[in-house]
Amino acid sequence: MLKKTRIMTPGPTPVPVDVLLEGAKETMAHRTPEFKKMLANASEGLKKVFRTGDHVFILSSSGTGALEASVANTVSPNDKVITVVGGKFGERWAELCKAYGANMVKIDVEWGDCVKTEQIEKALKENPDVKVVFTTLSETSTGVVNDIKPIAKVVGKTDAILVVDAVSGLIAEPLEMEKWGIDIAVAGSQKAFMMPPGLAFVAVNGEKAWNRIEKTRSPRYYFDLRAYKKKYTDTPYTGAVNLVYQLNKALEMIEDETLEKIWNRHAIFANAMRKGIQAIGLKVFSKKPGNVLTAVTVPEDVDGIEFLRVTSKEYGMYFSGGQGKLAGKIFRVSNLGYVDRLDMISAMATIEMAMYKMGKHVPIGSGVKAVEEMLMEGDE
Amino acid sequence: MLKKTRIMTPGPTPVPVDVLLEGAKETMAHRTPEFKKMLANASEGLKKVFRTGDHVFILSSSGTGALEASVANTVSPNDKVITVVGGKFGERWAELCKAYGANMVKIDVEWGDCVKTEQIEKALKENPDVKVVFTTLSETSTGVVNDIKPIAKVVGKTDAILVVDAVSGLIAEPLEMEKWGIDIAVAGSQKAFMMPPGLAFVAVNGEKAWNRIEKTRSPRYYFDLRAYKKKYTDTPYTGAVNLVYQLNKALEMIEDETLEKIWNRHAIFANAMRKGIQAIGLKVFSKKPGNVLTAVTVPEDVDGIEFLRVTSKEYGMYFSGGQGKLAGKIFRVSNLGYVDRLDMISAMATIEMAMYKMGKHVPIGSGVKAVEEMLMEGDE
Repeated sequence: MLKKTRIMTPGPTPVPVDVLLEGAKETMAHRTPEFKKMLANASEGLKKVFRTGDHVFILSSSGTGALEASVANTVSPNDKVITVVGGKFGERWAELCKAYGANMVKIDVEWGDCVKTEQIEKALKENPDVKVVFTTLSETSTGVVNDIKPIAKVVGKTDAILVVDAVSGLIAEPLEMEKWGIDIAVAGSQKAFMMPPGLAFVAVNGEKAWNRIEKTRSPRYYFDLRAYKKKYTDTPYTGAVNLVYQLNKALEMIEDETLEKIWNRHAIFANAMRKGIQAIGLKVFSKKPGNVLTAVTVPEDVDGIEFLRVTSKEYGMYFSGGQGKLAGKIFRVSNLGYVDRLDMISAMATIEMAMYKMGKHVPIGSGVKAVEEMLMEGDE
Repeated sequence: MLKKTRIMTPGPTPVPVDVLLEGAKETMAHRTPEFKKMLANASEGLKKVFRTGDHVFILSSSGTGALEASVANTVSPNDKVITVVGGKFGERWAELCKAYGANMVKIDVEWGDCVKTEQIEKALKENPDVKVVFTTLSETSTGVVNDIKPIAKVVGKTDAILVVDAVSGLIAEPLEMEKWGIDIAVAGSQKAFMMPPGLAFVAVNGEKAWNRIEKTRSPRYYFDLRAYKKKYTDTPYTGAVNLVYQLNKALEMIEDETLEKIWNRHAIFANAMRKGIQAIGLKVFSKKPGNVLTAVTVPEDVDGIEFLRVTSKEYGMYFSGGQGKLAGKIFRVSNLGYVDRLDMISAMATIEMAMYKMGKHVPIGSGVKAVEEMLMEGDE
C-alpha cells in the first residue's frame, strides 16, 4: 500500500519546504560580506530564542559537539562538577566530564523522573567547591522535563555555573537564560528549529560564565569558545553556508509564529497525545512529562521493537524506541518542531492500527477521539 | 496555530517530492536526442496506463485542451453527436460540441446519478446517423462513475465512435481502451498521474477513430491530432520540457506500484471515506459513487461555503466545493493520486473537527474509527 514517510522522532524532525529550499540555493563563499551579514542576522535571531543579550555561537557540529564545547570550556582536570543523570543525555554529560578528567558528583535520578531542586541544593551544600552543574531541560530519552528555573536560582547563589543541555528542549519548552540566570545553554538545529541536522548552538550568558571559560585549562581548539567570541558574529572556521541560509529562514518562521505560541502549541500537542495514549489503555512512561515528546510504556504483550517496524514499514510513520536500558520497553512519539494537529492525529491513528494489527486490540478510534477533543479545546 | 497545507481536491492533487524535483532540473532544448528519448519513453508508459497499443499524444494544455482536441478532430459542422450531461464535465462536452456546430442529442442525467447504458442504446437507435458519443468516466463534479464497459459495447456495434473524458478517472478507475473498445480517451496530468497541471493526453485507439479524424472538416491547428501523429513520438510544437521529466518519473512510480494496486487503493480509500461520512451522520451525495472522490451533501444547518473556509483557513486542509448548481450544496473529498491512509484519516478528522467547530455536533472520532476499520480491512 502506498505510504508517505512521516517522521515523529525527537530529532531529526520534519523540515518545512521553505527551509529545505534554502538549502538548495547556490553555496556562497564564507568570507564575503553577504555571508557575514547572514551570520550576523542569525546571531541576533538566536539571542532571541535563547532569551539572552549575550553571545550565542553557531557550531558546525551535532548537538553532542556543543555539549563537548560546554565541558571543554568550563572543566579543567580534577575540577569538581555535578552531573544530573536521569537518562541517556544525562549520561552523556557524565561521559563528557569523565573524558575531561572531572571529579564528578553524580546525582542519579530514576529514568522517567525529573531531578528535584533539593537534590541539587544538597549536593552543592555538601560540595562547596563545585565549579559546574550540568543538567538537561528536556531529557529526550525519557520524555521528562526538568524544572530549570528553581535549579538556576539555587546554583546562582553559589560560585558554580549552571550548564543546561537544551538540545531537544529549546523553543519547545519555556527557557529564559537571562531572567532565570542560566550561565550556558546548548541547542541543536534538528529539533524545534525545524532544520536538518548539522548546526549546534552554544549560548553563554553573563560574566560568571565568561570568567569560568577564561580560567579553564582543558585543551580545546575547534570548540574553543574564546575563538568564537573573538570572531563573533563570524565563525572562526568555515561556516556551514547552506545550513546558515536555512537557519535564517527557520528563525524568521519562529519569529513569525512567536516563541510564546510555539511553547503553547507544544504543550497542547503533548497533552493531547498523553490523553490519546491513556484513552486506548496504554501508559505514559514519564512521571514528569515534558512538551517535546510522549514516552509510552510498551504493553507487556507487545514486542516494542516489532511495533516500530510495523509503524514505519507498514504506515511510513517513524517513532523512536527506547535508548540504553529502555530499549524495547518504551516508544517515543515526538511533537517537536514542524508538527501540526493533523500530524498528531495521524500519529495516534497509526499507534491504534499498528497495535491492533499486532494483536493488541485497543479500542480503535478512541485515542484519536481524545486527541481531537484536546486539540479543539486548545484551539479556543 | 501552525498548519501545513494539504490538498484533497480532485486535481490538482498532491505531488510526490521525487516528481517535484524532476521539475527543478535544468531545462533542456526540446529538439535534442536526449529529449526525444524522454518523449519516446513517456509515450510507451502512457500506452500502458491507457491500455492501448495505438497512439497516446502529449499536449501542453489543461484537460479541457484535450477535450477540445477530441471534439475538433471528430466533429464537423452539423454532425450529429450524443453528449451525456450529468454534471459540470458532461456540460463541458456539450459546450464544446456547440462551439463546433454539432447537431446535438443531449442525454440529461440527474446530477449525482450515472447514465444508464440503455439510455445511450435508445438514443443511438433513434439517431442512426450519430457520428460520436461523448461521455465521462468519472464525473468529477458529482463523484459519480459511469459504467463505460457496456457503453463501449453498445457504441461499438454502430458506426459512431466513443470518446471518453477520463480526465479525473484514468489510473484511479479501471479503464481498458483496447479490451473494451474505446475509440478516444482523454486524461490530464494533475490527477492520478501525481503531477502538477500543464499536460493533457489524448489516446486514439483503432482504425475507426483514425477514419473519423481523417474525415473531420473542422478547423484545427494546435490541436490537430494528424500533426501529432506525424511527429509521434515527438511533439509538433514545443514540448513542456520539465513537465515531461516529471511525467517520466510519475509513470515510473505508477509502474512500480502497478495499475491494479492503484485501482484497488482508490477503491479502498473511497469506500473508507464513504463509511466515515455515514458514521458521523452525513450523507454521500452520489448515487453511483466512484473511487476518485466522495461528494458529501452539506447538512441543512451548515453553511457549505463557510465549511470550506474553516477546513482550509483553520486546518490547512483543502477540499472542493460544489460546482455549478451544486455550489454550497456539496463538498468533495478527493482520494485521487498521491494520497495515503494517514491522509484519509487526516481528512476525516478535519471534517469532524470543522463540523463541530461550526456548531454541527457530529460524534467526534466516529468517522475516523470507521475509516481506520475500513483501511485495516483493506490491508488484509
